[in-house]
Amino acid sequence: MKKFYIAKSRRLRSTPFTSRIESHGVTAYTIYNHMLLPASFGNLEKEYFHLKEHVQVWDVAAERQVQVIGKDATKLVQLMTCRNLSKAKVGRCYYVPIIDELGGMLNDPVALKLSENKWWLSLADSDIGLYAKGIASGLSLKVEISEPDVNIMAVQGPKSFKLMEKVLGKKINKLKFFGFDYYTFKGNKFLIARSGWSKQGGYEVYVENRKGGQSLYDELFLAGKEFNVEAGCPNLIERIESALLSSGNDFDNGDNPYECGFDKYIDIDSEIDYLGKKALIKISKKGINRKLMGVIIDADKIEVTEEISLYNSNNIVGNLRSAAYSPSLKKVVGIAMIKKEYWDKKTPIELKIGEKKSNGTICDLPIV
Amino acid sequence: MKKFYIAKSRRLRSTPFTSRIESHGVTAYTIYNHMLLPASFGNLEKEYFHLKEHVQVWDVAAERQVQVIGKDATKLVQLMTCRNLSKAKVGRCYYVPIIDELGGMLNDPVALKLSENKWWLSLADSDIGLYAKGIASGLSLKVEISEPDVNIMAVQGPKSFKLMEKVLGKKINKLKFFGFDYYTFKGNKFLIARSGWSKQGGYEVYVENRKGGQSLYDELFLAGKEFNVEAGCPNLIERIESALLSSGNDFDNGDNPYECGFDKYIDIDSEIDYLGKKALIKISKKGINRKLMGVIIDADKIEVTEEISLYNSNNIVGNLRSAAYSPSLKKVVGIAMIKKEYWDKKTPIELKIGEKKSNGTICDLPIV
Repeated sequence: MKKFYIAKSRRLRSTPFTSRIESHGVTAYTIYNHMLLPASFGNLEKEYFHLKEHVQVWDVAAERQVQVIGKDATKLVQLMTCRNLSKAKVGRCYYVPIIDELGGMLNDPVALKLSENKWWLSLADSDIGLYAKGIASGLSLKVEISEPDVNIMAVQGPKSFKLMEKVLGKKINKLKFFGFDYYTFKGNKFLIARSGWSKQGGYEVYVENRKGGQSLYDELFLAGKEFNVEAGCPNLIERIESALLSSGNDFDNGDNPYECGFDKYIDIDSEIDYLGKKALIKISKKGINRKLMGVIIDADKIEVTEEISLYNSNNIVGNLRSAAYSPSLKKVVGIAMIKKEYWDKKTPIELKIGEKKSNGTICDLPIV
Repeated sequence: MKKFYIAKSRRLRSTPFTSRIESHGVTAYTIYNHMLLPASFGNLEKEYFHLKEHVQVWDVAAERQVQVIGKDATKLVQLMTCRNLSKAKVGRCYYVPIIDELGGMLNDPVALKLSENKWWLSLADSDIGLYAKGIASGLSLKVEISEPDVNIMAVQGPKSFKLMEKVLGKKINKLKFFGFDYYTFKGNKFLIARSGWSKQGGYEVYVENRKGGQSLYDELFLAGKEFNVEAGCPNLIERIESALLSSGNDFDNGDNPYECGFDKYIDIDSEIDYLGKKALIKISKKGINRKLMGVIIDADKIEVTEEISLYNSNNIVGNLRSAAYSPSLKKVVGIAMIKKEYWDKKTPIELKIGEKKSNGTICDLPIV
């Protein structure tokens, strides 16, 4: 595939770590929430194996925060998601599908409950802050909505635990999955969550002090030598194998949370109030006719820039939305929206990658 | 400056013209409304002179439309902008600053009144559809909000008039600036506005039928040979000289419309109702302390990826937000937020471009 440059400008915001990751050899960016998000350091497969064996530090500042503060903060956050947050606890992270009044997906952030009246929504790629502002204005809610200067640095991979213990002390080991707490490094306090956009384990450091964050970034590389630390970024291959869905790639506003497999994050039975509840009740009664599933394809490369139709003979089985060559499986792995009649995974699929026809099978998610 | 590739994916949406502009030699993209927007065909200065002399066809599908239909459509559009739309006419385009309740800028689309109950907002780069959905849900407005599959192709440059007349007939000549009407090509109807993101004259074709639009695109190149037609894109140099402000570059949510020089699009005196009106009244009474102005700098290159401070001795004069080398002026031209005490344009400025110090002056907008 032909490659194209990215035309940088102030609108495609840099992060506090941009100059560092450029020194570390980033080669490609994507844009996420109007910000540079590193996408490769030149060899996706090498980065994939490294992530699964060692530890990487990622600049994921593009996971911007919508901060909601005020008497009605919890009410507003609940209005935006179909997940029941009535028992949410301070110090915990919640994966929350955000939907519109028709039940269409808008985003799938991680919500952090910072206090009874303060939340952060750690966003996928869409301006949910504008949705929040619109609702708050329409309902005259008592909230302040902003995008604070919070820049996330992720530490991911099996050796992330040892590295973070070395830098921040043993206290970090007490942190449970999707919990967060505060830790101090060189006099600066950091909110750190045990979370991240890989299934290899690790942390996300919510940097509120740019200089302090840069100092911690540098220390992670110094202290991380013995753990073979490298700069990295969310890895396309790993995230597809692990079924970490990507908003805008795997689903968009035309899909509802049932189709995305988010059933366990949908509450249509309790008394909670959110936009789109009526629509979801209706969808639930009617049932869905398609859902996201995995596919495994006999091919050694692919680049998905638009939906690719999956066929069986002349019948459309579904649409491929993300895919990458997995050097572990020696096949292409992908995430696709599959029609109901093919959910039994028995039907072989074919597709065109460029001009070449390839064959594959449907599987469950996660793939690995 | 080091160059980086763009990591394509479905999330960074392709347009109906992507394969064509790639054949035509696009080299760099930016991302705009989650879509590929061409940024260069390899030589910005050559493209600048060509745009000012001939005619170019641009893929600006990334100017996505928010479609608002329904009994409350006009009410909702008015709620989002400080411009008085009470006398807006069907068939006309309106440049409308969109603000939040605090008076901060969110976008600066062109609004097209399609009928009494139907509008399109032709967006700059932010998800105003989510703002509209939030307000509509909060106020229970009777509207349908969507992003229709409308993809804009612009025809820009002094020879655009002759080219469009040749392809679409003499009727197109009757179109006035910021007016729109419908024209037929090979059986497909196109909404065409006399507008565009250059000051060189031309049209924007709102393509609602992908195949029809591709056919028109191809015809423009066939018929345009005699006018020296080329593929192009919004040109950084030309748009800065002409002071076509770029949302996210020249202003953002931290700026109000007075600071952007949008005074003539602000109505705080009539009875119209919009979010942020109270805030604008307050700002208006207090007065502003900074505004966007032009700068001319003695330098032969620049790349702005973050605000660059402008100094006089040790005093900060303002912040540079966009800039490019102008081969006409043989200097760097830029758009900057300038403090009130320097609005008289008498104070020389200095700035660092990379490690090099350069000198310049403040000027009015547009620069040329």
